[in-house]
Amino acid sequence: MSKKSKKLVEQITSRDEDFAQWYTDIVKKAELADYSSVKGCMIIRPYAYAMWESIQGYLDKRFKETGHENVYMPVFIPESLLQKEKDHVEGFAPEVAWVTHGGDEELTEKLCVRPTSETLFCEHYAKIVQSYKDLPKLYNQWCSVVRWEKTTRPFLRTTEFLWQEGHTIHETKEQAESETKRMLNIYAELCENVLAMPVLKGQKTEKEKFAGGEATYTIEALMHDGKALQAGTSHFLGQNFAKSFGMQYSDRDGKLQYVYQTSWGITTRLIGAIIMVHGDDNGLVVPPRIAPVQVIIVPVAQHKEGVLEKANELKDRISKIARAKLDDSDKMPGWKFSEYEMKGVPIRLEVGPKDIEKNQVVLARRDTGEKIFVPMEDLENKIPELLDDIHNNMFNRAKQSVEEKTHAAVNMKEFKDIVENKTGFVKAMWCGDRECEDKIREETGATSRCMPFEQEEVSDTCVYCGKKAKKLVYWGRAY
Amino acid sequence: MSKKSKKLVEQITSRDEDFAQWYTDIVKKAELADYSSVKGCMIIRPYAYAMWESIQGYLDKRFKETGHENVYMPVFIPESLLQKEKDHVEGFAPEVAWVTHGGDEELTEKLCVRPTSETLFCEHYAKIVQSYKDLPKLYNQWCSVVRWEKTTRPFLRTTEFLWQEGHTIHETKEQAESETKRMLNIYAELCENVLAMPVLKGQKTEKEKFAGGEATYTIEALMHDGKALQAGTSHFLGQNFAKSFGMQYSDRDGKLQYVYQTSWGITTRLIGAIIMVHGDDNGLVVPPRIAPVQVIIVPVAQHKEGVLEKANELKDRISKIARAKLDDSDKMPGWKFSEYEMKGVPIRLEVGPKDIEKNQVVLARRDTGEKIFVPMEDLENKIPELLDDIHNNMFNRAKQSVEEKTHAAVNMKEFKDIVENKTGFVKAMWCGDRECEDKIREETGATSRCMPFEQEEVSDTCVYCGKKAKKLVYWGRAY
Repeated sequence: MSKKSKKLVEQITSRDEDFAQWYTDIVKKAELADYSSVKGCMIIRPYAYAMWESIQGYLDKRFKETGHENVYMPVFIPESLLQKEKDHVEGFAPEVAWVTHGGDEELTEKLCVRPTSETLFCEHYAKIVQSYKDLPKLYNQWCSVVRWEKTTRPFLRTTEFLWQEGHTIHETKEQAESETKRMLNIYAELCENVLAMPVLKGQKTEKEKFAGGEATYTIEALMHDGKALQAGTSHFLGQNFAKSFGMQYSDRDGKLQYVYQTSWGITTRLIGAIIMVHGDDNGLVVPPRIAPVQVIIVPVAQHKEGVLEKANELKDRISKIARAKLDDSDKMPGWKFSEYEMKGVPIRLEVGPKDIEKNQVVLARRDTGEKIFVPMEDLENKIPELLDDIHNNMFNRAKQSVEEKTHAAVNMKEFKDIVENKTGFVKAMWCGDRECEDKIREETGATSRCMPFEQEEVSDTCVYCGKKAKKLVYWGRAY
Repeated sequence: MSKKSKKLVEQITSRDEDFAQWYTDIVKKAELADYSSVKGCMIIRPYAYAMWESIQGYLDKRFKETGHENVYMPVFIPESLLQKEKDHVEGFAPEVAWVTHGGDEELTEKLCVRPTSETLFCEHYAKIVQSYKDLPKLYNQWCSVVRWEKTTRPFLRTTEFLWQEGHTIHETKEQAESETKRMLNIYAELCENVLAMPVLKGQKTEKEKFAGGEATYTIEALMHDGKALQAGTSHFLGQNFAKSFGMQYSDRDGKLQYVYQTSWGITTRLIGAIIMVHGDDNGLVVPPRIAPVQVIIVPVAQHKEGVLEKANELKDRISKIARAKLDDSDKMPGWKFSEYEMKGVPIRLEVGPKDIEKNQVVLARRDTGEKIFVPMEDLENKIPELLDDIHNNMFNRAKQSVEEKTHAAVNMKEFKDIVENKTGFVKAMWCGDRECEDKIREETGATSRCMPFEQEEVSDTCVYCGKKAKKLVYWGRAY
């Protein structure tokens, strides 16, 4: 490695020394995001945006396969519309941005920039649905939303972020509940099969559920520093909004009924999760299936005869099976190595005069650092195989990390010890009372992450009050 | 045709009777857009959004092939940032929406909701570009923008609309100018090869150019009612913004230079153009290459044995070569015919017991109404051929309509006669003075649409003042 490349690596804070600074360093050095002069808003740079496009591509395909259609709703919501569902407005009003002037005129009614679009979908559905024949309506929207945040961090918590929001209405409670679960499962598939990120599926407590909904399902991921991150949520809204907005249809017997409703979403914070689950002291490690560049080709001694020609030839070949890029700039190879390590490209292909002589290349894995020699004629087989292998290894490594960082607690002494010293998920029983949940948060900083679908009984009493336990809850400090 | 289907058709205003009402009827009946309780904002419904996705898909691919990268910039622009380029703020400030409050707090500086993002890109580029090695930067963004409009119409003029905005910076003037033209050509390709809509390429006058730019290139389309519509623009911004925002780089000799810049965009108004170029008294006619449904399969006598099975089998086969949909609902075939005519589906495939007996289907073209019998085994060949044929026919018909509605004028009497009676483009010479341009607008309502790249000389004096002519200009009333 050249001196220059060493220097580049040294500019990153060590992950175990200062996790927050390490995160910020990666966001900057891997060119993922930049700050703008708008407080709390970020610029998503091409490399991160390409990952978002991969996530979009995967999900949009899955949404369409499951019968969903995309629409676009206005960016503004009139104050009176936001106020139609009581719990909903209480949940969101404190954190919205208000438009009060258009051009030179003051508006007669102020408009908020959408924090979420339930109210707009409800108003529209109420207009377009008459009969059971019009149901279900399965709509989705890709857009940005705004929530006025006091403290922000790129991808994890920003005033504006990108997301998709699904909004569906159904004839029966069963259909809506099944939709809610179906979409949660699609999110879990995305996380595990595409982002190599294990998630825990479960239900939020009443305290943590969506404002205006009946039940919120969630997938929770665990970051390298032992803090949890909510990676996606799916809400069963029951008939709450239907009643506030008059979303009715005539059923098979000609009687008027209220629809059952769901909503569900994932956001650009997933990119923050990718950084914090997979990254290391050399930078980002991008899961192969969303990597904007899967194979970076670095010629060695590229001034020598035949090297660039061969590198170009390999690029053309590999481009047919993977997202490949050739870096033929005049930087030193060692500098390039560091740069693509920082950007977390899954495979680096090195090719120099000696390799050409032996009709082979070097493939270096980003996840393990391992280097292998591969005969040139085997690349079409070897590269897809290696990308899958890297995905599996990253997933298993992350899975193991979650397991190591998940601890059961049967009393508050154990609970606090885990939160303070071991970090990670605390598995502990809960009586179901809001008061215990509040106290736990007050005393430990940990919130209830979810009541997992797969329940166990780690004891039979509530970890806080000692009364009879109702549910196993995963707790943790969270992003 | 059944009575019911007749009724459906009769609900549309005739195109030649009341063009504006006809347009509104199609938007509603073909389920393209809906109004929301937010003044001037529209809901883009699934059928229209799917067309927008097709447009996006085509353009995004072309952008990436030509080396562009997608990014995402904040939705808000601080007032002080908008004000950095003098002409730009004058052009946009009167029509922006202002955010003055976040949550319960009044902001210290108000933020506008982006009407366009030049200022944000400039600020970002100024930070990330140091050397000529960093150039060019070829960024694009897909997003929505807001312009506070007094009178609005779905797709054509709305307070919020969807668009893409490309923003690039370059070392030399030549490179930037060539980029400006390259992107205009890609827009023209989209319109002609995908939307079957002929366009005229040219340059805007000083009066009509982009606020803060040096030159604006445009593609202009002509609607069925003879009014023009600006379908896409590409701006050469020179070094104006570079100087206001300090976008400098060190050149190959180590000297500081200002970059040359471009920006370019197309919007959801293209969907309005599609309606107004191709639609007829039976509804929308969607160009095959962006049609969400290219082939609608309508079973005839579907209760009879074997009909639905055959229809399903055909759907599976055709889905491999085209976007096909089967309507097996219990509505009458005639009703379905009207519905898909209204939605402008390019090909209707009818299949009933007699067809099955003869091993054939009926294909009905939306553009001409023509019906042909096709042996079932020929569908894989016939359908793609027919879709191309429909595209070509729609393009040629539109092209002919533009030619018939383009008239030369050598004096104001002729000019006014064309605008009032013949409608369409007026080709007339211009001396280059702003005053003549202003007077023409005042007296006729026609604006200068562009100075076409392919210049002719229809006379040698200005159509207004009679002084020596400098340029041929296309004029017209416009959307």
